[in-house]
Amino acid sequence: MDQLEKIINALIANKEYSSLKTMLKTMNEADIAEIFSNLPTENMLRLFRLLPKDLAADTFAFMDADEQELLIHSFSDSELKEVFDELYIDDAADVIEEMPANVVKRILANTDSDTRKQINEILKYPEDSAGSIMTVEYISLRPDMTINDAIKRIRRVITEAETIYTCYVTDNNRHLLGYLSVKDLLLADENETVKNIMETTPICVHTTDDEEDVAKMMAKYDFVTMPVVDDEMRLVGIVTFDDAISVLQEETTEDFEKMAAIAPGDDSYFKTSVFRHASRRILWLLILMISGIITGVLISGYEETLQAVTALSAFIPMLMGTGGNCGSQSSTLIIRGMAVDDIRPRDFFKVVWMELRVSLLASIALAFINWLRIMVMYKDTRLAAVVSLALIGTVVMAQLIGCSLPIAAKKLKLDPAVMAAPLITTIVDAGSVLVYFTIATRFFNL
Amino acid sequence: MDQLEKIINALIANKEYSSLKTMLKTMNEADIAEIFSNLPTENMLRLFRLLPKDLAADTFAFMDADEQELLIHSFSDSELKEVFDELYIDDAADVIEEMPANVVKRILANTDSDTRKQINEILKYPEDSAGSIMTVEYISLRPDMTINDAIKRIRRVITEAETIYTCYVTDNNRHLLGYLSVKDLLLADENETVKNIMETTPICVHTTDDEEDVAKMMAKYDFVTMPVVDDEMRLVGIVTFDDAISVLQEETTEDFEKMAAIAPGDDSYFKTSVFRHASRRILWLLILMISGIITGVLISGYEETLQAVTALSAFIPMLMGTGGNCGSQSSTLIIRGMAVDDIRPRDFFKVVWMELRVSLLASIALAFINWLRIMVMYKDTRLAAVVSLALIGTVVMAQLIGCSLPIAAKKLKLDPAVMAAPLITTIVDAGSVLVYFTIATRFFNL
Repeated sequence: MDQLEKIINALIANKEYSSLKTMLKTMNEADIAEIFSNLPTENMLRLFRLLPKDLAADTFAFMDADEQELLIHSFSDSELKEVFDELYIDDAADVIEEMPANVVKRILANTDSDTRKQINEILKYPEDSAGSIMTVEYISLRPDMTINDAIKRIRRVITEAETIYTCYVTDNNRHLLGYLSVKDLLLADENETVKNIMETTPICVHTTDDEEDVAKMMAKYDFVTMPVVDDEMRLVGIVTFDDAISVLQEETTEDFEKMAAIAPGDDSYFKTSVFRHASRRILWLLILMISGIITGVLISGYEETLQAVTALSAFIPMLMGTGGNCGSQSSTLIIRGMAVDDIRPRDFFKVVWMELRVSLLASIALAFINWLRIMVMYKDTRLAAVVSLALIGTVVMAQLIGCSLPIAAKKLKLDPAVMAAPLITTIVDAGSVLVYFTIATRFFNL
Repeated sequence: MDQLEKIINALIANKEYSSLKTMLKTMNEADIAEIFSNLPTENMLRLFRLLPKDLAADTFAFMDADEQELLIHSFSDSELKEVFDELYIDDAADVIEEMPANVVKRILANTDSDTRKQINEILKYPEDSAGSIMTVEYISLRPDMTINDAIKRIRRVITEAETIYTCYVTDNNRHLLGYLSVKDLLLADENETVKNIMETTPICVHTTDDEEDVAKMMAKYDFVTMPVVDDEMRLVGIVTFDDAISVLQEETTEDFEKMAAIAPGDDSYFKTSVFRHASRRILWLLILMISGIITGVLISGYEETLQAVTALSAFIPMLMGTGGNCGSQSSTLIIRGMAVDDIRPRDFFKVVWMELRVSLLASIALAFINWLRIMVMYKDTRLAAVVSLALIGTVVMAQLIGCSLPIAAKKLKLDPAVMAAPLITTIVDAGSVLVYFTIATRFFNL
């Protein structure tokens, strides 16, 4: 890709536009969009005009919202119409969702009434719903058609459809009856009737279903397309696998961000302003800071103990750190396990039982190593016993908190990803201090 | 799903096998596999025999390795042959990879020599390579065929091919020349020649390419299938989108685990033994514990300072915690940004510049709030100044470390995901203690 960029820049510098045109025609739209995004605006606009009509629309769909806006501003009305006529309806709706009101107005004014109606259909569904990511361009067949009729119909409407991998069969009221893959169609005798070879009881989703659930279902069933129905079970659109993959990737990014105590944002790293970056992080930092202050107050409360046995303070960071790490290990496993439907909320006790045994095994191993170290370095049996016991208590507590909170969140219909490392660590920090000093005061009779 | 499980259990209890057979036939293979995995072994084996041949094979492909092993043990040789003849080659290779040697021997003994050869072909590629996840069942056309010939050929080989969404065009030596979608085929005139309508310069991957890169490319280009070629550019297989989604999900899980200091494992949460769970977590806990011990030693070194100004100790957890949280926010954004190719190693200085400004903005806000709190609660300007300055220093340091280490890891060809929260937190903990006490000793003239 770097090499391609260099070649293109050299050709632009020499104004060799006809070679550029030939070269761009052989390239994939996703690659062209990537290279365009690194060009100065002026060159991007010039090169975009070199693309053949269909490649231009495909490339446009792959570009970022701000580049799309720049292009739209530079388009004449007829150029705008050309691009939007070529775009698939779901891609057009995606573009429109990102544009300011005046640009949306201009786009809709330059699309034909049919397209406008279809775009508005998609725009009316709530963000993150199946309806908002579906396309209305699919192939529907009637149950009484012969295979021959069906193939004729497909040939007629094929240029409008985004995908023909699966054809859906509906009755006169658009109720979803079944589906046929292109493979079934090509394999069947041409005089056979559609209803005899179609798969009945199709799996489908509702327009208002969460897009993440839809994407997860498609991954589970290995579906290339998923039919979307309205409340009366009428087929209104399909979700295609490329949108499902995008949704899965966006949701994963959101989970990563939430699990690092960052408020999710829509833009990519470099497209986010410094101020927005800071504001996405500060709220959680403040909340977590308060818990840090509480832990500090707790430690201050044991000042006498610390002054009586000064060696105790040296172990606080190790205990707090290990507790935090154990808690985040457990919570991460559980949050990810629930995200991929490997762990369900009703597995709560199975999870707790597992984590309890794991934490005992891990903590005894860690405690033993610490015990050895303290015996060698401090030669103090009591200190070794206090630290080792506190470590066992901290690790067990941390793993139990780490596994319970995400499941509890899920049961309360909250996002489990919030119950991740930063929050768990802060809770465990305070807990480990309490465990440590409770054991220490007992053993040293303070 | 829960409801379906109840119905099936009730039918089994009443031995209503013919109703069960009817019911299972209407269901999707992924759902059947899920329900089977919750049944007692005996019932699972019995119900599996009720499935029609093709549905049985599809269901088998969706089951977990240990259930597949149970089934294989219960199969007669002819049943085994039936299932493996129906399976797609890549699914069969996946099953075989998970089985113990004696089971593999029995499976290969009961497949015909052609299938056996194809399976061995896939098994010879390294784990996690494109070759290991590809299927050899694809449709290839010759450039001189007419569309009519092509459709005839497709009809003839269609039952063997896993997918027909894209047909690949090769010469007599199997060199990849181009591709055609089913859509192109159906739209073209039947006397047209394949080479005139095919897309040339196809994007392809090599057998030894990393499966994650292949999956990311398919997501980038919105490909349903990706052709795989050998060193001489001969087409040897295709990767289908369902395998690409699985790879993306597995890689994401691995990233989550690494970022929580857990050694990645292959099995799901409940299928992993207690001992294995513990061993996946202990190594990192030990490494991180050592850094915790170092931080403790550092704090002990400032014992005199702490005894002179006892109030100082109360702020250590807050400083360490905030530093750790800021570091993990930065590292998470960078690691994820690199995973989705939004950030590249050569963006290093852009990232550092961004994080520097964000950290100044965030830390000044947090420092101001702390300054206010300390002035109200302690009425000590010097203490307020020390804590606020230490907070700014800690946050800036944490974010710079958090953003640099993952990029440095990537440049050194290490996995950036290892440079995540746990490791960064531990490094930052020691750093924040040093920053804090350096500032404190200056201000209090100690």
